[in-house]
Amino acid sequence: MKFVIIGGDAAGMSAASRAKRNEPDLEVTVLEKTPDVSYSACGMPYNIAEPDRDVDDLVVRHARVFREKQGIDLRTGHEVAQIDRATKTLTGKTQEGEAFKLPYDTLLIATGASPILPDLPGFDLPGVVALKSLEDGRRIKDFIRSQDVKKAIIIGMGYIALEMCEALCARHIDVAMVKPRPVFLPWMAEELASVVRKEIENHGAKIHPGHKIERIAAEGNTLKVFCPDLVLEGQMVLVAIGVKPCSELAAEADLDLGPSNAIAVDRTLMTNDKDIYAAGDCADAYHVVTGQKTWVPLALRANRAGWAVADNVTGKRAALPGIAGSAVFKVFDLQVARTGLSMHEAETFGFEPVETVIKTRSRAHAHPGSTTMHLQIVGDKKSGRLLGMQIVGREGAVHRIKAPSVALHANMTVEEFSQCDLAYAPPFSPTWDPMLTAANQLLKKM
Amino acid sequence: MKFVIIGGDAAGMSAASRAKRNEPDLEVTVLEKTPDVSYSACGMPYNIAEPDRDVDDLVVRHARVFREKQGIDLRTGHEVAQIDRATKTLTGKTQEGEAFKLPYDTLLIATGASPILPDLPGFDLPGVVALKSLEDGRRIKDFIRSQDVKKAIIIGMGYIALEMCEALCARHIDVAMVKPRPVFLPWMAEELASVVRKEIENHGAKIHPGHKIERIAAEGNTLKVFCPDLVLEGQMVLVAIGVKPCSELAAEADLDLGPSNAIAVDRTLMTNDKDIYAAGDCADAYHVVTGQKTWVPLALRANRAGWAVADNVTGKRAALPGIAGSAVFKVFDLQVARTGLSMHEAETFGFEPVETVIKTRSRAHAHPGSTTMHLQIVGDKKSGRLLGMQIVGREGAVHRIKAPSVALHANMTVEEFSQCDLAYAPPFSPTWDPMLTAANQLLKKM
Repeated sequence: MKFVIIGGDAAGMSAASRAKRNEPDLEVTVLEKTPDVSYSACGMPYNIAEPDRDVDDLVVRHARVFREKQGIDLRTGHEVAQIDRATKTLTGKTQEGEAFKLPYDTLLIATGASPILPDLPGFDLPGVVALKSLEDGRRIKDFIRSQDVKKAIIIGMGYIALEMCEALCARHIDVAMVKPRPVFLPWMAEELASVVRKEIENHGAKIHPGHKIERIAAEGNTLKVFCPDLVLEGQMVLVAIGVKPCSELAAEADLDLGPSNAIAVDRTLMTNDKDIYAAGDCADAYHVVTGQKTWVPLALRANRAGWAVADNVTGKRAALPGIAGSAVFKVFDLQVARTGLSMHEAETFGFEPVETVIKTRSRAHAHPGSTTMHLQIVGDKKSGRLLGMQIVGREGAVHRIKAPSVALHANMTVEEFSQCDLAYAPPFSPTWDPMLTAANQLLKKM
Repeated sequence: MKFVIIGGDAAGMSAASRAKRNEPDLEVTVLEKTPDVSYSACGMPYNIAEPDRDVDDLVVRHARVFREKQGIDLRTGHEVAQIDRATKTLTGKTQEGEAFKLPYDTLLIATGASPILPDLPGFDLPGVVALKSLEDGRRIKDFIRSQDVKKAIIIGMGYIALEMCEALCARHIDVAMVKPRPVFLPWMAEELASVVRKEIENHGAKIHPGHKIERIAAEGNTLKVFCPDLVLEGQMVLVAIGVKPCSELAAEADLDLGPSNAIAVDRTLMTNDKDIYAAGDCADAYHVVTGQKTWVPLALRANRAGWAVADNVTGKRAALPGIAGSAVFKVFDLQVARTGLSMHEAETFGFEPVETVIKTRSRAHAHPGSTTMHLQIVGDKKSGRLLGMQIVGREGAVHRIKAPSVALHANMTVEEFSQCDLAYAPPFSPTWDPMLTAANQLLKKM
């Protein structure tokens, strides 16, 4: 059987490797349009922060290893242009411009996501960059070095924008951030978002939400971002307003699309064509809280979905329960973590959400080195269910959030969660973990 | 109604405060034999580590506040000698030697636990100390200062022994630890235990397991601990071989006892007398994994049980699901965490346990500052259930363990746990959290 995979990053290479492990005789071909496979995309901001580190450090496994040690027919520089479902054939072009044609028995689309670039004047200027591929990382690092960038503008204020803000500040670059929507981190409880905002501003970066971007223009080596009431200047503009699933190939092949135009898949990662799977940032997922489809492009899901496809292709049945909406990131010295639904999301999905927001200390009474921790918990008044949690703090936020994530997978009520045996020792938390304190307080409203 | 509580620490004062909040007119009397109430006992080693900190810093709420602001009739220096269930009366003696008699309608026994002191020669010598009450903390600190202690011996190697080892090392005191049983941290997976042992030895403390202790003798200012094949010398000997529930009063009143002679209570914390509750370190609990009774004297359970008693006494029905066997502690720069059952415990309770032990890095591929993390996961081959986890690492062990704790409360299988959406970002973990990696590997054996 010929198992063909379009896309050689997290989902694609996970699927290829595992399929070969499961069934060494399987013919596995991966077509990747860029020269790079299997790299830590999420690590790019941290690599960019350090001028002396090679971007290629982020490569987890080299193409050669996949080819020679794992027996995967990995073809880089191969861009697929069309999926012909009737004849089960892919056609495309190599980097050198040569046309190719490849039949498949089972296909996995793992084309990932790509940065959204607004269709506005000046977004194609040199020095206007986006961060997605390893090649983008190299370009940005080269540009900072060659142009000796001292001042940069970031358009957008999502995870990648904030991580890049920190990375550029680490390189002593002045950063100004701007975006059209008025609310900073709109999915986050207001008190928590203001803690994050303050952390960024305390590190010298400027934040300008609520400014429509009209165009970018170059004047000599300076780029200017024009808003109706604001003009920002810098030598580099990073566009990080979000990503979109690379689902064009799938759409043209008449495969169903789901939320945000991600490729619609069932719990086995199968599309509406039984011979075609989709996994990773290009595909949708079930949300364990809402039971509805959602699109959250994150690395763990991509890896896990790649594995599940491999299992299904090699005759082990794997069905994924879905995602809990967990996400964590670092902003300077703050840890930011979320899982489940925000108040707004909970309302949208027909819950009757109530929330509690608390401010607490990170360590036990009288223990030295305690810092402030902010926490929001959301529950459903109708069912008593735990719906979500958000934590911002200087220690212990990111790993803590894994507990409510598990609780969401288990469909726990707030009361059940409040009774969990979350261990305590003075250097790490108050006797009642802040998550339990928040749950106890929320229970009074439910 | 007269609600009387014996014992004024975690469980007792939690119950008193919450009962008053629930029902302000309730008559609440607390009888505490020492002069201290409501202090962070777990914080004592960390306080002892710092010569300039006052032990009284550990007091969370002063007796005066309970009396004046909360209207609790708190009587310190009151030691109860007998519970007469027939007449529902307590009798005892005050610190000043005065007899007292007190009737109750509902009684809570919250007498805590006390250090086990072996009945061997020399354990009553000056300089032979144990750590339980705030008074013990004061005595130890005074002794270290007045005797200018340079060398100490710790008998025992449990949590408190290890925390005290760190505390004494912080004060530049040479520490040797000794215990009769041959295995260091016997409940812990061997690989993990050896990491903890190495951490202690790297900080200069000596560890001598497998030495039966015969007696302690004083020679001038020097104390000698005699074992058949070893003699250890120091100016102070800390006995930390474990604690036992203070259940004598209950036993004499013919209340049922459970594991380790802890007072037997149901899920509502009621003893076999419907007017008498027990909570905190003196009482037993259900284990959520085995469904059987167990005795784990820890602060969170004590606080939670105190609250539940208050709710039950004031007409709100509260039943506790139980404990998951979670415990965390710090040993120098290591975090140690466990939840659920060890292999041995799992076997004892009739499971068919299988384990996986992994060694992994704490951060993503190529992320700077990564450290080593060791993890053990235990599952039941028969049912597929997750039974337990242990983690040792320099970062992220303690808060991580909360996720499997929740999973144990939810009765998850290893497979269900392996599918949880535990968020990832490069500064905090590999894409697959080490807990998921361990679960994935364990699944292959199940």
